[in-house]
Formats: sequence, structure tokens, C-alpha cells
Amino acid sequence: MTQFINARDAVVTDALDGLLRGSGGRLARLDGYPHIKVVHRTDWDASRVALVSGGGSGHEPAHAGFVGQGMLTAAVCGDVFASPSVDAVLAGILAVTGPAGCLLIVKNYTGDRLNFGLAAERARAFGLKVAMVIVDDDIALPDLPQPRGVAGTLFVHKIAGALAEDGADLETVAAAAQSVIDGVVSIGMSLSTCTVPGAPREDRIPAGKAELGLGIHGEAGVEQVDFEGARDAMAMVTARLATHAGDGPHVALLNNLGGATPLEMSILADHLLVSDLAGRIECLVGPAPLMTSLDMQGFSVSLLPLNDSVRAGLAAPVGPLAWPGCNAVGGVDIRPLPDGLVPIRPMPSPHAERRAYLAECCALFIGVESELNLLDAKSGDGDTGSTLATAARALDGALDRLPLSDLTQLYRAIGLELSQTMGGSSGVLLAIFFTAAGDASASGLGPVAALRAGLDRVMQVGGAGPGDRTMIDALLPALDALPLGIAPAAVAAREGADRTAGIVRAKAGRASYVGEDKLAGHNDPGAEAVARLFEMLAMR
Amino acid sequence: MTQFINARDAVVTDALDGLLRGSGGRLARLDGYPHIKVVHRTDWDASRVALVSGGGSGHEPAHAGFVGQGMLTAAVCGDVFASPSVDAVLAGILAVTGPAGCLLIVKNYTGDRLNFGLAAERARAFGLKVAMVIVDDDIALPDLPQPRGVAGTLFVHKIAGALAEDGADLETVAAAAQSVIDGVVSIGMSLSTCTVPGAPREDRIPAGKAELGLGIHGEAGVEQVDFEGARDAMAMVTARLATHAGDGPHVALLNNLGGATPLEMSILADHLLVSDLAGRIECLVGPAPLMTSLDMQGFSVSLLPLNDSVRAGLAAPVGPLAWPGCNAVGGVDIRPLPDGLVPIRPMPSPHAERRAYLAECCALFIGVESELNLLDAKSGDGDTGSTLATAARALDGALDRLPLSDLTQLYRAIGLELSQTMGGSSGVLLAIFFTAAGDASASGLGPVAALRAGLDRVMQVGGAGPGDRTMIDALLPALDALPLGIAPAAVAAREGADRTAGIVRAKAGRASYVGEDKLAGHNDPGAEAVARLFEMLAMR
Repeated sequence: MTQFINARDAVVTDALDGLLRGSGGRLARLDGYPHIKVVHRTDWDASRVALVSGGGSGHEPAHAGFVGQGMLTAAVCGDVFASPSVDAVLAGILAVTGPAGCLLIVKNYTGDRLNFGLAAERARAFGLKVAMVIVDDDIALPDLPQPRGVAGTLFVHKIAGALAEDGADLETVAAAAQSVIDGVVSIGMSLSTCTVPGAPREDRIPAGKAELGLGIHGEAGVEQVDFEGARDAMAMVTARLATHAGDGPHVALLNNLGGATPLEMSILADHLLVSDLAGRIECLVGPAPLMTSLDMQGFSVSLLPLNDSVRAGLAAPVGPLAWPGCNAVGGVDIRPLPDGLVPIRPMPSPHAERRAYLAECCALFIGVESELNLLDAKSGDGDTGSTLATAARALDGALDRLPLSDLTQLYRAIGLELSQTMGGSSGVLLAIFFTAAGDASASGLGPVAALRAGLDRVMQVGGAGPGDRTMIDALLPALDALPLGIAPAAVAAREGADRTAGIVRAKAGRASYVGEDKLAGHNDPGAEAVARLFEMLAMR
Repeated sequence: MTQFINARDAVVTDALDGLLRGSGGRLARLDGYPHIKVVHRTDWDASRVALVSGGGSGHEPAHAGFVGQGMLTAAVCGDVFASPSVDAVLAGILAVTGPAGCLLIVKNYTGDRLNFGLAAERARAFGLKVAMVIVDDDIALPDLPQPRGVAGTLFVHKIAGALAEDGADLETVAAAAQSVIDGVVSIGMSLSTCTVPGAPREDRIPAGKAELGLGIHGEAGVEQVDFEGARDAMAMVTARLATHAGDGPHVALLNNLGGATPLEMSILADHLLVSDLAGRIECLVGPAPLMTSLDMQGFSVSLLPLNDSVRAGLAAPVGPLAWPGCNAVGGVDIRPLPDGLVPIRPMPSPHAERRAYLAECCALFIGVESELNLLDAKSGDGDTGSTLATAARALDGALDRLPLSDLTQLYRAIGLELSQTMGGSSGVLLAIFFTAAGDASASGLGPVAALRAGLDRVMQVGGAGPGDRTMIDALLPALDALPLGIAPAAVAAREGADRTAGIVRAKAGRASYVGEDKLAGHNDPGAEAVARLFEMLAMR
């Protein structure tokens, strides 16, 4: 079993029951399992024309997913790719048809035509008014005497459904349905056939090929073509449609045949809406799975000429969630980038003491590069020293550009420098540290408290805290001790860094991915770097 | 290439443009392609709290598909499975954030945390109010120190989105988002990993196995388990959730990870809603693709405790079509089958002349069984004679039960007998012929005109007409000639039947599937049967 099903013969009944349980009470079914699988609206009083459709299953959300206000009154569901029985169709008709009558919407497959047709006769013998239309929108096989019914059927459901909901009589509803059928054309393309539940997948379409015009049961299409990508695929489909479509405005329906991803479908939508047909497409239904073929990785496009009654039918509200609405199409609305992406460099300003202080910090990190790399190599990829030294060299070279006399600006400027010169997570985290410190300084906190606020932000964003074997284990106690003086801060940093050698299980940071045996006995290199810094500063 | 894409590096930008073109003008993007991919609402005046989410692409419809009224204000999209840059996030924030501020909704992945975190800092340096929440709903790996963010993120979008749309301030919106995060739990199961565009599919999960708790980028889950079908799969998922969920009422979200069919998802919904958890599930979002992982054939279930504010947030209207709504769950509403499925047999009534007439017709078909079979074997499967003879034997045996004295009832009764004793398409079509003839007779047509009306219905339902090499080629001219007498009708039937030997290309019926060489020179066996019948009747 390669699918989320149980017994093969329970696929459709299980699925329909799932649909019903989650329908919010809007759907019911007839008590005819397993042979009679009819889903119908519960908000239905038979005073209006009933719309009954159906056929084999495997095309979900068609048809049961389109039962509801403004679309189908009932769906008669066969087994996967198998027509429902005459009795099942008759049960569906009888369950929902009142004096206003019933329209059967049938896709052009022999089994469906015959079984719906005989059911209609039997229903008429009860005195019911029953009309039937046959949808044959597939233009894939120009020589096929009986074109198949595919996703264009949805337009029939929608437009006839809107009229029926509105109280139109059977003749009007049937005539509108026939008018849609006369106008709608569809064609599909696929990179795969489909996996019938409980059966192995058929691999008729070789790699590098696509099949144009295959049916919704995986029937052979008109030809297998070289597949050159989405743009080319859509061009082949629109070229076929163009020969059948008139020059006026159309609504297009872009149907996911089941197995294409939303990304692929959006790409296809993009190409459809800039294709040679684009000038004739005024609005779009989808992309969405509407008339699928199980997991077929393919799509179909349907086109229907627009007129006032089609527009009104498309715009009418519907209950079924599976109907994705109909949107006007247009260009891509592109807005200018906001100001502020290119950071404004603060005016440099001198401050000899801070300059010297920063230069000494940079020199420290440059000096311990190899030592920290060796330490890092015991538990990681051995580059902590180089990462810090590279950033320090860059910062050292930027000292003349920094706003040294304004601590708020200085913190922010250091954050900006680090974000642009220091790679990896540590670069981002240190940038957050200094930028948030500048933010805190701007709001009135003193120099140390501002750094402490920056560290809080690092812990929130990075998700690490004390005990996680990161530089926080040294930096947090050092900043907390700093108000007492640089010497106690250095002691606290050293103690914190040395404690990391005993932390072998971390919930964040790189250490969380490394085995305990590689961590035990070695200080975290980031925490060690912090301890070295504070020790140096205490010795100044 | 095995997907509907073009160049790999254009996958996301092509898809976003497709989304925009079909958005009916409700979405715009920033002019930052390819590096900055930000989609935002056009109906936005920044007077309310902006909601910005995003992350790597490949999770569609998340996140750009949820931009719109009542959900996200902007989505910042990275490449497939790659975090967007700090600049991209900052551009998104700056584009939509006004005095009311902005909430960043970030899934718990290091890259997203850091890049959204630093962008937030940079935005704060502009004086903007920016809050950030981290979604970590995945309970799959209990020992993972940083639980991943998966489909539960959608609840955050929806509930925070409803508050923001309603004008709540940033503190309120952020607190509500955090409250959802504190309450929501999720876990997924899959039968496959996913196909990253332009890369071969990874086949980590062997046939017969499912992986429980894998991440939305295909990261390894907690374990591979034997896959025993949908019911068992859902039971494993709900068992894990049950240990994390409280006893009160919950909303469940059933997410398609991308590659499961609607049939499978409905089956899973059915099992979820009768699972051990069912008593705690008051309403359901989905099943729907919400937070996918490209084409991963899997699903996830998220649970969120319900309270008044969650209920209000879920119920608020939204613009994005990708949000499938939230439905109350319930049992399967099963209605009794309608009356009329078991046909009421008419009261038998005698009519000696008609009885003899029918008996002779039956005898004819029984007598020509072998001959028609031989004729059929030349172009078909050689069973036309047997099909007709079997039906004739059954009808002959039913003569005593028939309402012979009432022609309307008799036509209908013959239709019923044939539908129950004669298999295949021809049985259905002959049943339609007689049932429709009964219908026409009931509406006042004479015996021959009623049969002619029945034939019209056969042509409509069956899709065949004159010239299609079916029994219609004999029956239609015979019925048209019958008002002139049985002899002219027999001549017309014979001429029609013999013409079929020259029809080698048909648009309907079985002959449309048979090669020309097999058809030429042989009468259609159905038409031949009709001619034999009329010739016999003319000789009586």
C-alpha cells in the first residue's frame, strides 16, 4: 500500500464520510452504502431546480465537493473511475427533485450517459421533470467523435447552479447549461499518469516527455511531446486552445489534475496569463484542484466565452469551499522598494579613548585566531577563531568611519559593520547584539545596561540561554558583574567560560548537534573568546 | 526536468508573479527581484498592526497565499527551503509598517529567527514598533530542544490576523499570537519525502514504511514505522497528540503536506474525526494544503485549545482564498433511501393478441441467436445474438406478469424487464427506448409515435445517430415508415441494415473502436436483428 487508504473497496465511502463529518452539517448522504453513494445538500427544500451530477470517483473535489449552495444539489459517486449504477443515480434524483424538476449534468463517458440516461427515464415515469446535458469540452482529440467531458464541467455546475439557486425554471437552467457546454473548450497536459488506489502506478510517460491531451482517467492523449519546461508546456496548451476560442473575452479555468504542486500551478498561471491567449482572458478560476485525476502530475486549461449571464453566474456566491472563486486578471503590481534598505552611515566622529579601546579589542581577537580555531576543531569545524579575527580586522579597518563620540550611534554602527563583514549565525547574532544595544542606548539606558539589553535580544532571537554552551555563558555573567568593575567581570567571564567544558548537552546553538564525547572537557570557543576579551580589558 | 518549472532559480519569482496576476489586484510585490521577494496587500493603509511572516518557499500556499484581509499583511519569501535575507525581511517590514507597528510571525528555524530578528532590530532603529513571535508547534521530536514550526503557524496567522484587522494594538496582537503558540501542537506523517525543484527526489522512506514526525523540509522524523493503512496512520498521529492536548475542546487543522490526493485527505479526515481524540475536536480546518512541503505525500494534524478569543478569531472573515474556513464537526448525516428504487410492478393484465405478437418477437430473437453471433464475430466479440436471445427468453418467460392491456404500462414494463435481464450498453439503451416510449405514450402519443420518441431519447443519451453503424440505422427508417404499414417498414429496415455494411467509420457505438477492414461488407448485427424482426412481422 502506497497511499493513505484502507481496503481498496472502502476508498470512496471512507472519503465521503470524511467529507460529511467536516461539512458543518451542510451535507448528508443516502443510506445506500456501498452501492449507492449519494451526497446531497441538507439546506434544500426542492422548491427550486435540483442539479445532480456525478460519475466515477477519483476526480475530487468533483463532484461531492461541489455540493452546496449555488452549485450542485446532489452528487452521485461511483467507485474510482467507474460510473455509478442506474439505481444510484435514480436515488440521487428522487432524493432531491421536487416540482421544479432536475437537471442532470453528465460528462461524456458512455457509462455515465447510459446510467444517468436510464435513471432519468425511470424518474420521469414517476412524473418528475428531468433534463440532462452532456459535457464534452475536451478538444484534445479532434478526431474523437465523442469528445470527453473534463474540467469545463465546473463552469456548467457554477453557472447553472447560480440560476437554479436564483429560482430559474428547468428550461432556463438547462438552456444555460447547454450554452456553457456549447462554448467551453478544455485541454490538459501531464508529466505522469495516475495511481489507481490499490494498483501499481502506470509509467506510460517516459522521463523528459509530457503527454498532451490525456483524459482524466489517464486515457492516452493526442501525443507525447518533449518536455522543455513550464513555459513551453503552457504554450503548447494555449496554442491548441487558441484555434477553438473566439476573439472575445473569456474566463479561464486552470485545473490541477492532482499531483502538481502549488508552486508549479502558480508558475503555469503566470505563463497562461502572459501567453498569446492572455488578451482574451478577462478572469481566472484557480489554479486549484477542481477536476483531478487522482495524483496525476498535470494541469488543464478550460476557456469559456464571457457574456452577461456567464459573468453573473460566475460572480454569484457559493457554499462549497472547493470553488476557488473567479478573479479578474491583470499585470503584476510592482511597488518601489521602501527607503531605508541602504543603511545611512552615521557621520564619523572622533573619540581617542574609545578608538584605542576598540583597537585593542580587535587586536585581541586577531591575536587568538589560531588558538580559538584549535579549540573549535575539537568539537566543531575549527573556524571560530578565523570568523572572529576576520570581523575584527574589518572593524579595525573601519575605525576612522565610526561615530566614536556618540555611543548610541557607535553601537548601531558596529552592528552594521558586523552584519556586513561577519558571516554565519554568529555574525547575525553579534549584529543583533550591538544594534539592539544601540536601540536601548537611544531609549536612555547606560552603556552597560544597553549591552545587557542587547544580550537579552540575542537570547530571544537566537533561542539560547545560559547553560547552552555558547558565548552567552561567559558574556551574561560578565555583563552582570560589569557594574562592579572590569575585574569582577573578567572573573565572571572566565568562570562562565570554564563551566562550558562541563556542558555536554545543549538545547541551542551548534553544540546541540554535536556528540557528548566531543564536547566534554573543552571550553566553548565563543565563551572562551569572551573570557579572553574581558581578561585583556581587566589587565589594561 | 520532472516538474512544471523553468530555470530552477526562477521557480519562486515565476510562481509569485502567477499568484499576483490572478489576485484580482489584491496583491502587489516589491521591486526587488530576485533577492527581495515580498508580497503585500494593496488594500492597506498601515493604520493597523501589520502582520509579516515568511521564510523559505516550497510551503505554498504559505505564506504568500495567506496575504490578505484578516490574515497576513505581507509575506517575505525566500528561495525554496531557504530563509529570506535580512534585507528582504526589512523591506517587507518597512513596506507595510506604520504607527501601529508590526508583528513578525516566524517559524522556529535558525535562519528565519536570525534574519527576521536582525531585520526587526534594523526596523526598530527607524523608530518602528516591531514585535516577533516564534512558532514551535511540532511535537514530533520530544528531545529536540528547539521544536520546529509547522502548520500550527496558520492558527497564528488567522487569530492574530483577525485581531489586527479589527484594530487591536501591537501588544494585544502579539500576546494573542503568543497564546496560540503556547497552546498549539502539531505532528505529521508521510509516505515520501519531497522533490526539491531541479534535484532528484530523495527516497529515504522505503516501500511499506511511513515516517512519523518528519519536518516540512523533509528533515528526518522521529521514526519510520510500518505503514498499515490510513486508519492505523491516523491512530499513531492522534496518539502522539493526545499526550500533549488538554481535555477541553479543540480546533483541529488537517494539513496536506502536498502530495496526498483529496481522496486520501478525506479518508484521513474521517479517521481523525472518529479517533480517540474526536471527543476533543469541536471544529476542523481543512483538509487542505496549507503548509506544504512541495510534493510530500503526507499530512499533519495541529490541535489548538478553543476559548472565546480563538473562536472569534477563527470565525472572522478573510480575504485569502487559500484559507479553507473552519467547520463544526459532527457525525455522518444519513438519510433514508427514497421510495421508488424498487420498481412497482404493474398489475398483470391479459391481451391475447399482444401476447402472441410479443411471443413471436421473442421466438425470432431466440431463433437467430447463432446467426447474429456469427455476424457479430466478424467485427466484434460475437455475442450480439446471445445478448438478444437471453433477453428474449427472459421476456418470453415474463409474459404472464406483463400489463398487456395497457400499452403505456406495457412499454414501461418491457423497459424494466430489459434493464434487469439484458446486460451491457445495449440493455440500458433498449430499456431507455421502451421506458421513454411509455413516457411518450402516457403523454398522449400513439403507439408508433411513442416508439419514435423513445428512439429519439436513445439517440440523445447514447450519442449515436443514423450512419453510425448501429441498430438505429434500421430502426429509425422502419419506425418512420411504419405509419404506412408494416411492409414498407420492413423494406426500410432491410435497406437500412444493408447500408451498414458500407459504413466503416462511426462516431459512436462499438464500431467506433473497430478497424475499417473488419467492418466493410458486414451488416451491423444490431441493425440486422431489427431488419429480421420487421421482416418477420411483415410476413405474419
